[in-house]
Amino acid sequence: MAKELKELTSRSQDYSQWFLDLVMKADLAENSAVRGCMVIKPYGYAIWEKMQRQLDDMFKETGHMNAYFPLFIPKSFLSKEADHVEGFAKECAVVTHYRLKNDPNGSGVIVDPEAKLEEELIVRPTSETIIWNTYRNWIQSYRDLPLLINQWANVVRWEMRTRLFLRTAEFLWQEGHTAHATKDEAETEARKMLEVYAQFAEEYMAMPVIKGVKSASERFAGAIETYTIEAMMQDGKALQSGTSHFLGQNFAKAFDVKFTDKEGKQDFVWATSWGVSTRLIGALIMAHSDDNGLVLPPKLAPYQVVIVPIYKNTDQLQQINEKVAGIVKSLKDLGISVRYDNADNKKPGWKFSEYELKGVPVRLAMGGRDLENNTVEVARRDTLTKETVSCEGIDLYIKNLLNDIQVNIYKKALDFRTAHTIEVDTYEEFKQKIEDGVFILAHWDGTSETEEKIKSETKATIRCIPLEGDKTPGKCMVTGKPSNQRVVFAKAY
Amino acid sequence: MAKELKELTSRSQDYSQWFLDLVMKADLAENSAVRGCMVIKPYGYAIWEKMQRQLDDMFKETGHMNAYFPLFIPKSFLSKEADHVEGFAKECAVVTHYRLKNDPNGSGVIVDPEAKLEEELIVRPTSETIIWNTYRNWIQSYRDLPLLINQWANVVRWEMRTRLFLRTAEFLWQEGHTAHATKDEAETEARKMLEVYAQFAEEYMAMPVIKGVKSASERFAGAIETYTIEAMMQDGKALQSGTSHFLGQNFAKAFDVKFTDKEGKQDFVWATSWGVSTRLIGALIMAHSDDNGLVLPPKLAPYQVVIVPIYKNTDQLQQINEKVAGIVKSLKDLGISVRYDNADNKKPGWKFSEYELKGVPVRLAMGGRDLENNTVEVARRDTLTKETVSCEGIDLYIKNLLNDIQVNIYKKALDFRTAHTIEVDTYEEFKQKIEDGVFILAHWDGTSETEEKIKSETKATIRCIPLEGDKTPGKCMVTGKPSNQRVVFAKAY
Repeated sequence: MAKELKELTSRSQDYSQWFLDLVMKADLAENSAVRGCMVIKPYGYAIWEKMQRQLDDMFKETGHMNAYFPLFIPKSFLSKEADHVEGFAKECAVVTHYRLKNDPNGSGVIVDPEAKLEEELIVRPTSETIIWNTYRNWIQSYRDLPLLINQWANVVRWEMRTRLFLRTAEFLWQEGHTAHATKDEAETEARKMLEVYAQFAEEYMAMPVIKGVKSASERFAGAIETYTIEAMMQDGKALQSGTSHFLGQNFAKAFDVKFTDKEGKQDFVWATSWGVSTRLIGALIMAHSDDNGLVLPPKLAPYQVVIVPIYKNTDQLQQINEKVAGIVKSLKDLGISVRYDNADNKKPGWKFSEYELKGVPVRLAMGGRDLENNTVEVARRDTLTKETVSCEGIDLYIKNLLNDIQVNIYKKALDFRTAHTIEVDTYEEFKQKIEDGVFILAHWDGTSETEEKIKSETKATIRCIPLEGDKTPGKCMVTGKPSNQRVVFAKAY
Repeated sequence: MAKELKELTSRSQDYSQWFLDLVMKADLAENSAVRGCMVIKPYGYAIWEKMQRQLDDMFKETGHMNAYFPLFIPKSFLSKEADHVEGFAKECAVVTHYRLKNDPNGSGVIVDPEAKLEEELIVRPTSETIIWNTYRNWIQSYRDLPLLINQWANVVRWEMRTRLFLRTAEFLWQEGHTAHATKDEAETEARKMLEVYAQFAEEYMAMPVIKGVKSASERFAGAIETYTIEAMMQDGKALQSGTSHFLGQNFAKAFDVKFTDKEGKQDFVWATSWGVSTRLIGALIMAHSDDNGLVLPPKLAPYQVVIVPIYKNTDQLQQINEKVAGIVKSLKDLGISVRYDNADNKKPGWKFSEYELKGVPVRLAMGGRDLENNTVEVARRDTLTKETVSCEGIDLYIKNLLNDIQVNIYKKALDFRTAHTIEVDTYEEFKQKIEDGVFILAHWDGTSETEEKIKSETKATIRCIPLEGDKTPGKCMVTGKPSNQRVVFAKAY
C-alpha cells in the first residue's frame, strides 16, 4: 500500500497532476485551511532554506544588507504611485478591524464593530510604498547613497486561481529595494541583480535561463523597465523565475524622496527593486523531476547522500554500522550532507523508493557482500544508474560524482530547451507550433496591440526580449512591420 | 554637530529615554508609518540574524525541522480552545475584504464592499490553532510521533502601548510546535527547550536568566504549564525573555488530533509550544549597554573588531593599509568578523565614537608610531580601556580578548543581578524595597488572590517560581499561609 500511495501520475499522462502528486507525495507542501495559502512542509522548507542561504550570501557579496519593514501598508500609500495601485489594488487582503469580541447572540467570536481602523491597512503585496516612505527620512545627501537593502518576507496577493508553489495567495520571497544618485547607477544595479539571479538559477538550480527585458504590458506596476529570467519547464511552458526592476524616479516622486548632490543641487532619487520567491521551488521541481519523483541538484538538496544498510541479522547490521560510520565522517569532512538510514521498521526497498521520490542525488547501499569486498553500491538519482565502488577513496569519488550530477542535470535541461526552441517566421506556423510546447523566437513589431492579438488568439505571451543572442532585425510575423530582433514567445505559468 | 546628535540621555537621568535614544541613534530600529509596527534597520537586523542563526542551529541539533504555516487564521479556529481565544481575540488584526476599487466619488481607492470574505481571517498572533488543524492530517499513528517542528515568522498582536523591540504590534519570532505520544515526553520537551533558551541567553547573549514556572495567572492562553526565563535589566526590572509551554492535550482535543499507539489504542496527542522574539534585542540592549552606547557580546556582534587607521598623509595611509591587510586576514582565518574603516571623509575621533555607540567589542587603531614599533592600540568596548600591543601574534591575542569580553559582560550582568536580588519576609518591607528596582525572593501562598493584591498595590508581579535554588518552605509574606518555596517578584517590562 505504501508503494501504491507513492505512485505518481506520469508526466505524459497529465503534467499538472504529476506536479501536484509530486508536491504532495514528496512532502513538499499542501493546501491549508485558508483559501490559496499553502503549508510548506519540512522537506519543502529545507529546500527553501538552501536557496535562501545561497541567495543571501550572494546579496551580501554584492554589498546589500537585510532589514525588515512592516507587514501592513496604509491604504493611502498604495494610491501614491498610479500604475502601482492599478496593479495591486484588485487582489489584496484588507485589514479593517483590530479586535474581536464574544458574540452576544451565541457562542464564538465576532468582529467588534467598535474596533474599526480609521484607515484600512493592506497586507503587503510588495513593499515599494512603505519602504520609499521610510527612505524619505533616511536619505538627505549623496553621502547616504547608494542604499542597498534586501528584505526576506511573506507577501499576500489575493489570486483567484492558485497552485502550490507556483501561484499562492501568500508566498515567501525576498525583495531588494535600492536607492541611487544617478540613473546609470540604478540601471546598473537592476542589471547586476538580474545577473545574480541568472547565476543562482544556472549554477545552483541547474536550470538554464534566458535573460531579457519584459514588454511594456508585462512590466511590474510602477517600473520603467523590468528585467526577467525565464526558464523552460518539461512541458515546454515558460516560468518567470525572477525579476529585477529599474523604477526610475517614480517612487521617489510619489513619496518625495530627494537628495542633495555634491554640487548642492537637489534631485529625486533613482530606484530599483528585485525579487524571487518560493515559486522557485515549483520551477526546480518542474525543470528536472521525472515519473519516479524529485530530481534535486546536489547544491540544493537537503541531503546530498543517503546510505541504506542491507542486512540479514543484527550482527551484520552492527558491522555495517561501523563501516558506514567511517564513510559518513569522511563525507562530512568534505562538506557533504549525508543521512544514514538504519531504521529497522522499513525495508531497504521501501527506503530506496522513498529516497528516489525525495530526489536525494546519491544513494549508497551496503550489504554483506560489500562488507567482504570493501565495496559499496552507488546509485545516481539523475540517471537511475548503479555501480559497485571500492570504499577506498569513496569520499572523493562521491564529491566528484555530486559535481558530475550537478553538471549533468543542467546539461539535460539545456539540451531539452535547445530541442524545444524554434525560430518561426509566419503567424500561421506560429499558431501551429506553439501548441507543441516550445519557445518560439519570432519577430514582433513592438506594439501592445500585436502582442495582445497574439495572446488572445494563441494564449502565448512575450516572455522577454532577450539581452543576448541573435540581434538581427526583421519583419513582424503578424503585421510585417519592422522588428529590431526576435523575441521569445511561449505559453507560461 | 555629529557628536551632539549622538549624545544619549544617561541611564540615571531617564532609563526609558536612554533606551529609546540608543535604539534610534545606533540605527537599530524606528517607528514606522503604521501604528505600533517598527522598521528594523540593517544594523539591528544584523543582530537578529546572528541570534537566528545560532538558535536555528540549536533547534536543529535537538532534532527540530523548520516549516511554514499560513499568516492567516480563520476566525472560527481561534474559538476552538476556550482560554486561547480569551487571550488573543481582544488584540488582533482582522482581514475582512480581499479587494480595493477606485473610489467613484473621487481620487484614491476604497475597500470594495462586494469583496467581503465569508469568514474573516485573523493575522496570526501565534499559530497553535492553524498548526494543530494541520497536524490532524499528519498524525495517525505513534510512528508519526514525535513531530518536532519550528517556524520563523512574523506575528501581530494589536498592543495599545508599544515600545521599540519590547512591545510592538508586529514582531518577528520563532515558534516551535511539537506533538508527542505521552505526557512525559511532552513535558520533557518543554523543559528541554527552556534549557536551550537559557543556554542561548547565557552563553550567547551573556545574560544570566532565572529559569522557572509561571503562576497560573501568567500562563500562556491554552497552556497547562508555562516555563520561562527571566532576566534583569539595568533598572532592576525583569524582562521575560523566552517561554516554553506544556499544552497537555488541549489543542489536540480542540482540533481532534488522535493517534493509535503500539497496542492499537487511540488517544489524543500531547503538545508543546515555545518561542522567542525580536524582544530579545531589547533585552540585549538593556542588559549590557551604557551611557556611551551599545555594548554587544562578541558572539552576537555584527562586527567583532573594527580597525581605524590614524594617518598624516596618503603615503602613511598606504603603509597602514598594507600592514592592516595582514591583520585582517589573520583575524578572518580565526573566524573573527572584522571591518577596516579607512574611509577618508570621517575623522578618527568621529569613527571612535560611532563604533562605541554601535557596541563593536574591540577597536584597533594604528598610527605612524605603531607602524615604527610594530604595535597596535587595542580598545575594549566593555571596559573602555586601551592598551598598546605588539602585532606579533595579534590574532590569537584578539581571539582570547573576545572570549574574555564575552565572559566579563556575563559576569558583570550576573554581579549586578546578585547585588539587586534580596530576600524579604514581610509585606511592609516588600512594598518599600520593590521601589528600589530589585528582584525580591519572597514567600507566597500560591493563590491568585494574593498575587493580584500584590500586583495592584505594588505593580510587582510574580516573574516565576524558580526551578533551581533554595526550596525551603515558609509562610506567605501577605497572608501568613504556608508557602512551598520563595518565588521571584519584580516589576517587569
